[in-house]
Amino acid sequence: MKLYDLSLSGNCYKVRLFAALSEIPLTLEPVDLQGGAHKRPPFIDLNPWGEVPVLQDGAVLLRDSQAILVYLARRYGGENWLPTDPADMAEVMQWLSTAANEIQNGPSVARLIAKFGFALDKAVALQRAERIMGLMERHLAGREWLALGRPTIADCAVFPYLALAPEGGLALDAYPNICAWISRVRGLPNFIPMPGL
Amino acid sequence: MKLYDLSLSGNCYKVRLFAALSEIPLTLEPVDLQGGAHKRPPFIDLNPWGEVPVLQDGAVLLRDSQAILVYLARRYGGENWLPTDPADMAEVMQWLSTAANEIQNGPSVARLIAKFGFALDKAVALQRAERIMGLMERHLAGREWLALGRPTIADCAVFPYLALAPEGGLALDAYPNICAWISRVRGLPNFIPMPGL
Repeated sequence: MKLYDLSLSGNCYKVRLFAALSEIPLTLEPVDLQGGAHKRPPFIDLNPWGEVPVLQDGAVLLRDSQAILVYLARRYGGENWLPTDPADMAEVMQWLSTAANEIQNGPSVARLIAKFGFALDKAVALQRAERIMGLMERHLAGREWLALGRPTIADCAVFPYLALAPEGGLALDAYPNICAWISRVRGLPNFIPMPGL
Repeated sequence: MKLYDLSLSGNCYKVRLFAALSEIPLTLEPVDLQGGAHKRPPFIDLNPWGEVPVLQDGAVLLRDSQAILVYLARRYGGENWLPTDPADMAEVMQWLSTAANEIQNGPSVARLIAKFGFALDKAVALQRAERIMGLMERHLAGREWLALGRPTIADCAVFPYLALAPEGGLALDAYPNICAWISRVRGLPNFIPMPGL
């Protein structure tokens, strides 16, 4: 099973992290984003979005880090990480949408600007980041994990760009519940870090 | 089962649409967004995000339109709309992420600006909309539906803000495959429209 990967990408890291936690072997295939390999064949034929990660597992080819987490959890991870019960699955799903939208367009974009020099609106990114970080801080008051009272792919999907928020100029000091949750994720058996963490 | 609803919201409409298509009875509870009811109790206690839709089904309480589609499909919709097979579920899931991010921040934000006067960056929204509409136009070349060769919740999640794109100043004429797909969705048994369609 091959993951088209970039070591500095939080979206790739969420897949590497979940694979490590659930002991799923992955072969990493680095994509040269600096050299523009993601915008031309053969990569662009695998993912017309021109984005990493991409997962290839036999005939299965997937873009989008959230969809890849769903695939790995359903095929190899068992019920704990993503249950099939409708209410439980939907509770996890709420956080996959949060990862795809609020986290991506908040702390992740703030990091793209601060660390990689992307020409995006810094004020908007910081405002969006502070809104979602405030919501998550309140959600995590009295909760150990994002959903179902246990680690799920919701935590894997949201973790990278929250833990990397300082790289985007967002201090975590004002968010003690988020910090405690980050420590809990870091303490999971088989946890792996990424550059910047 | 109660849907906290706004008739002009495409995110609420995607839930109403899927419920209609799969004959799931919903009680609509309109939320007075113009009057700010979404930002104060009792609504804000149901959803700290301060956003519609919210679904209440007995003890189940869900924010996020994609998560609500997952819940309804798993509980009441059967395997066709959201299968449990890992690869099939992940194929659908890719489009739920697209709905949460690219569609929301492209054509939906363009509409918020043009129709409702939101103070957001119009040039960025139009650029993001044109990128995703181009990708979808190419994806739909030779395909009838977004995923699995049949209607799924992927179509329900993406349909509203693509079909409403003209309200955001985005003409659909240049996108014949998207237009043909919109016609196919409109032709599904029990299809319901929304204001602006």
